[in-house]
Amino acid sequence: MPIRAIAFGRSDEFKHPDTIRAGVAEFISTFIFVFAGTGSGLALSKLTNDGPATPTGLMVAAIAHAFALFVAVSISANISGGHVNPAVTLGAFVGEEFTFDEGVGFWNAFVFEIVMTFGLVYTVYATAIDPKRGNLATTAPIAIGFIVGANILVGGAFTGASINPALSIGRVLVSWNITLPNHLVFWTASLIGGAIVGFVYDFLFMNQTYNHLPTSA
Amino acid sequence: MPIRAIAFGRSDEFKHPDTIRAGVAEFISTFIFVFAGTGSGLALSKLTNDGPATPTGLMVAAIAHAFALFVAVSISANISGGHVNPAVTLGAFVGEEFTFDEGVGFWNAFVFEIVMTFGLVYTVYATAIDPKRGNLATTAPIAIGFIVGANILVGGAFTGASINPALSIGRVLVSWNITLPNHLVFWTASLIGGAIVGFVYDFLFMNQTYNHLPTSA
Amino acid sequence: MPIRAIAFGRSDEFKHPDTIRAGVAEFISTFIFVFAGTGSGLALSKLTNDGPATPTGLMVAAIAHAFALFVAVSISANISGGHVNPAVTLGAFVGEEFTFDEGVGFWNAFVFEIVMTFGLVYTVYATAIDPKRGNLATTAPIAIGFIVGANILVGGAFTGASINPALSIGRVLVSWNITLPNHLVFWTASLIGGAIVGFVYDFLFMNQTYNHLPTSA
Amino acid sequence: MPIRAIAFGRSDEFKHPDTIRAGVAEFISTFIFVFAGTGSGLALSKLTNDGPATPTGLMVAAIAHAFALFVAVSISANISGGHVNPAVTLGAFVGEEFTFDEGVGFWNAFVFEIVMTFGLVYTVYATAIDPKRGNLATTAPIAIGFIVGANILVGGAFTGASINPALSIGRVLVSWNITLPNHLVFWTASLIGGAIVGFVYDFLFMNQTYNHLPTSA
Repeated sequence: MPIRAIAFGRSDEFKHPDTIRAGVAEFISTFIFVFAGTGSGLALSKLTNDGPATPTGLMVAAIAHAFALFVAVSISANISGGHVNPAVTLGAFVGEEFTFDEGVGFWNAFVFEIVMTFGLVYTVYATAIDPKRGNLATTAPIAIGFIVGANILVGGAFTGASINPALSIGRVLVSWNITLPNHLVFWTASLIGGAIVGFVYDFLFMNQTYNHLPTSA
Repeated sequence: MPIRAIAFGRSDEFKHPDTIRAGVAEFISTFIFVFAGTGSGLALSKLTNDGPATPTGLMVAAIAHAFALFVAVSISANISGGHVNPAVTLGAFVGEEFTFDEGVGFWNAFVFEIVMTFGLVYTVYATAIDPKRGNLATTAPIAIGFIVGANILVGGAFTGASINPALSIGRVLVSWNITLPNHLVFWTASLIGGAIVGFVYDFLFMNQTYNHLPTSA
Repeated sequence: MPIRAIAFGRSDEFKHPDTIRAGVAEFISTFIFVFAGTGSGLALSKLTNDGPATPTGLMVAAIAHAFALFVAVSISANISGGHVNPAVTLGAFVGEEFTFDEGVGFWNAFVFEIVMTFGLVYTVYATAIDPKRGNLATTAPIAIGFIVGANILVGGAFTGASINPALSIGRVLVSWNITLPNHLVFWTASLIGGAIVGFVYDFLFMNQTYNHLPTSA
Repeated sequence: MPIRAIAFGRSDEFKHPDTIRAGVAEFISTFIFVFAGTGSGLALSKLTNDGPATPTGLMVAAIAHAFALFVAVSISANISGGHVNPAVTLGAFVGEEFTFDEGVGFWNAFVFEIVMTFGLVYTVYATAIDPKRGNLATTAPIAIGFIVGANILVGGAFTGASINPALSIGRVLVSWNITLPNHLVFWTASLIGGAIVGFVYDFLFMNQTYNHLPTSA
């Protein structure tokens, strides 16, 4: 059972033979999410000088990410047979787009990033992975998208002054040439936030059901 | 049956042995909601001087609360086996974040708070607790989150001039050190609003079904 | 069958003995919708001088109405056993809140109101009343709420300059003391829009299924 | 099987005898979508001089299109028995409303349009057409609407400076009298984007299931 916490997904996902198909579907999902998420930040920068650092700019970023992540999770869930594992991947992408504000400080941004990743990954576990999710699985992609939208309304002003206007789509998708320290902060924080959920959820909530219903799907 | 109106939930919730697990899940849900709700108010205060008292500020507060409460209800519903009881808890949190405006007056704010809590708790009863809810239970968490979002667009300008910028996350979660009279107003109003729903819903709508279908789940 | 077009609902609704209970539930639903819808307009008027006549003011009005109507439909659908009949009632309320702009002219406002009511009532028919609605019934309340939100983004600037700041909640709920000509325009237009849907939908789409599946529920 | 990629829908749709009824339902759906989508652009132009080219203007356009397309898909899906084929039709309408910015250049706008149409059509395939879609079909109309909303937050500032204020509803619905080159760009780009999805999805994801489950519906 602890292996599942590390594998970060359901074990039967890896028995699926169509790994290439699932990979293509995941790539398209991620592309659609990054296109809308990062692209809306670029659009704001084009329209205004300080757009992302205003309440309206936060709203645009939040709605763009919430709607696009909801769709990205929906379309990959259907195609790759439930292979919903946006935890690390998308958590990292969300992190990418923010550079932490000088005035906020490294550790504040670090803790914020852990908290926001925790919220995202916990939502994925509770609504999309947990066998006890029931009919709320129908709205799981919406929940996963909207928690990111809600958190951007918080973190957009704190872990960074804004969505980074210097981050072009090409650089995100091709060279990953971002200032290295920021990069490491968000990856590390995302992995820590995700790992905390993995341990908490698996030992506290998952075992509970598996003991009672060992043959459930 | 009247005991159920007081217990403020389904009686079988209390037969569940995993009370600690449910408690942890409820705490995480509440934390995720408060983080986005209160945090978005702090973010607005950081970006602008009077952000929350503008239409855009209201929108940010409404969307942050709506999205985060929807997610908070979704994830606790799944884990604690349907233990959706955000009525008093979350109603109180929503209340906390608003201080009533001097110009509005005590009784206006008091009545507003009762009305808004009534709307929230009634929505919880009708979409998540009522056995007659049918397939609309799927969207119950969305409804619960969105009614709070809609009401913030009303109450944010009336029961208080804004989301209280002086209310830090730490103070909310740790010391609860808020001006006491406001505190009492919102707790009292929330409890009254919740109690009205309990009585109205239970005697008018719940009995109706239980008499006809005594063996239904 | 044509009687159904006039009765404006499903015939079995009227066989339900608990008419008083359904009436109370409908009243609460309508109250919650009007509170958020009209109240958000009042909030905008308090915060800004011309709030409702700005793009942000339109957004606040659209989101408040969309979220609140979605919730209002959800909670009445569950309690009164599917008694979703917001067609005339809510269409009229939406109309109330707008006064038509002098520059737009009577007939333009009249046609706009018919078109917007048509969209609302058609959505109610297609997603909540039509027996062929299938599993999209789950999201019917969201669709009903959101089409009103979308149309407010259009009509808020045309059929009236704004949400009427002079329309207090008390006057809406108690005296209905609104300038009579406006009142008549919106009631008449709403009834025409609703009637068009009733005829179109019933003869074109409803009969089709009833002929093939006379014993369907 | 490749014929399905060209027919751009499910083959059994064409066996449905009620083609006229389906046509009327599709027309009403499209009308409701264009009314809110184009109309919100006109409303912005009335309220402000450069509304659509501001972040708030983008938000209004995004929410109006997202909500209206969600509803348009919902109501046509129910009536015409699952005849959800907004791919070319709606993709083209979305394209219509934007004129590409001089500063962006022909090829950038062209590629943007292909990418955005790809996202829309892919979402339609994955959530509404694919037999493997499961219970996520319930939220398919929301996903289809929201991906357009998210992409407008990106493309509204790039493929055109704004929603074209000169595009009156009458011209859209009656004469289609738009500057021809723009017209051709968006139609061509939309068809290319849609065709790419048709090939990718059909050969990569559809065959997979049909081989294993040849008798599935």
